[in-house]
Amino acid sequence: MMIIHTISQLKATIHQAKKDGKSIGLVPTMGFLHEGHLALAGKAREENELVVMSIFVNPTQFGPNEDFESYPRDLNRDVQLAESVGVDIIFAPSAEEMYPENGGIMIRAGRQSEILCGASRPGHFDGVLQVVTKLFHITEPTRAYFGQKDAQQVAIIQTLVRDYNFPLEIRSLPIVREADGLAKSSRNVYLSEHEREVAPVIYEAIVIAKEKFLLNGDADEAIKLASHHIKSKSSGKIDYIELLSYPDLKGVTEETDHFLLATAVYIGKTRLIDNIIFSLKGEAAYV
Amino acid sequence: MMIIHTISQLKATIHQAKKDGKSIGLVPTMGFLHEGHLALAGKAREENELVVMSIFVNPTQFGPNEDFESYPRDLNRDVQLAESVGVDIIFAPSAEEMYPENGGIMIRAGRQSEILCGASRPGHFDGVLQVVTKLFHITEPTRAYFGQKDAQQVAIIQTLVRDYNFPLEIRSLPIVREADGLAKSSRNVYLSEHEREVAPVIYEAIVIAKEKFLLNGDADEAIKLASHHIKSKSSGKIDYIELLSYPDLKGVTEETDHFLLATAVYIGKTRLIDNIIFSLKGEAAYV
Repeated sequence: MMIIHTISQLKATIHQAKKDGKSIGLVPTMGFLHEGHLALAGKAREENELVVMSIFVNPTQFGPNEDFESYPRDLNRDVQLAESVGVDIIFAPSAEEMYPENGGIMIRAGRQSEILCGASRPGHFDGVLQVVTKLFHITEPTRAYFGQKDAQQVAIIQTLVRDYNFPLEIRSLPIVREADGLAKSSRNVYLSEHEREVAPVIYEAIVIAKEKFLLNGDADEAIKLASHHIKSKSSGKIDYIELLSYPDLKGVTEETDHFLLATAVYIGKTRLIDNIIFSLKGEAAYV
Repeated sequence: MMIIHTISQLKATIHQAKKDGKSIGLVPTMGFLHEGHLALAGKAREENELVVMSIFVNPTQFGPNEDFESYPRDLNRDVQLAESVGVDIIFAPSAEEMYPENGGIMIRAGRQSEILCGASRPGHFDGVLQVVTKLFHITEPTRAYFGQKDAQQVAIIQTLVRDYNFPLEIRSLPIVREADGLAKSSRNVYLSEHEREVAPVIYEAIVIAKEKFLLNGDADEAIKLASHHIKSKSSGKIDYIELLSYPDLKGVTEETDHFLLATAVYIGKTRLIDNIIFSLKGEAAYV
């Protein structure tokens, strides 16, 4: 496995792979890998001849009071894990390598970014689209892999790829969970022992809400139930719980066929997100 | 020569060319071709194995009171001219083909777009970056060709390519002029006979200003002189005349080595632009 830190070296390697007609799978990550990332890399390995994983804690997608500084980092550990699932190239640039100059051109994520996590994290999805656009141009992937845990991110990136005709396919994979249901997240390491014990209430709550909604179609009641579950079983502070259409992230109507039930909850100081995407038949759906 | 109207057909053709290892030159135009466009296509022909010219009057780069509706169009004439200089593919999509959906993601051109033409045409360069990004992704060019007549456009697109790592090279070529100095433009057909006679004052004015500036380094005096020339020799209404550093489009300082002297003038109802890019030695410079 190669570990590459500069754009020019990665571009040269990609150029050669393209010349050889190889398909390229890109797995963009912020590192501190967990089984969710490894599932993405494993799928990329199955479907492509060259697998690139980027490991970059992107400063432009963090707000001034967010956890950019404290975000967990361990490149040596990540390198071993990535190698174990067959990644060919790790791209681990510095912030200076990625953003040497700034001519002021911004990508604004727009309507789909004004709700859910975007409402709590202004500018977050603009930063995501900035780094993803750069990674797409540097890596020229055939397919790029994202976890459905960041469902809003996947939806917005799919819109970017569709509306700006990026020559690649977005692949998204189901959330990987701990045995007790908690969604795998690099941020789970922030949790104290007690917080870790109560954190599964988040997933429990959205499962309850989904089941209720499928019974009677009443979104408000379903969300109230989820909210009650979290509040009664933990001291978690709810940022949002919402039911929207997926992947367009609009209000639910009679025509909606895919639903996103998404939530963000502070467990102590740690903000955790989770979601379920499902169809009216109750089946898991990944668009 | 192929004439292609759909993105899917162009993508299929590009896909095959890429597979065959061909270099691709893209010449984005709004059609109604003149010698400036043909010079770009000729250079693209020299430097690439496959030459694609897009002909698309892009609605998103026109303001509500601008000339989108009346902009001259003549595809048959364009097809013959393009064929005569060796273009392989004309891509002439409809607006519906280019913009079937809008998920609300916008590229904002930022600082470099707030001056010169951008100040008079709010949103213009956002629209330019939108269509150029789409054309780059659809065509995957090795090189893309732009006329230096739209110097601000070239500068902003170069910033886009640099800051977002597009895997292509921007090539810009000198302004092609009529015998009397008027810069070739599709909009010259709007001019009445009398307006056409006085229109060369625009180029005369910036030549005078450049010479003056090179003599004494006084930008204000140079611009006054140019302004006086236009006002005394025509009834042209000056939108702007400015001297800036190039390609960063900042105010001139002692360190500036490349200068852009740019102007926009209304001759009757027709807004014409022109510019000179030069070094301190007075030499023409195209960055």
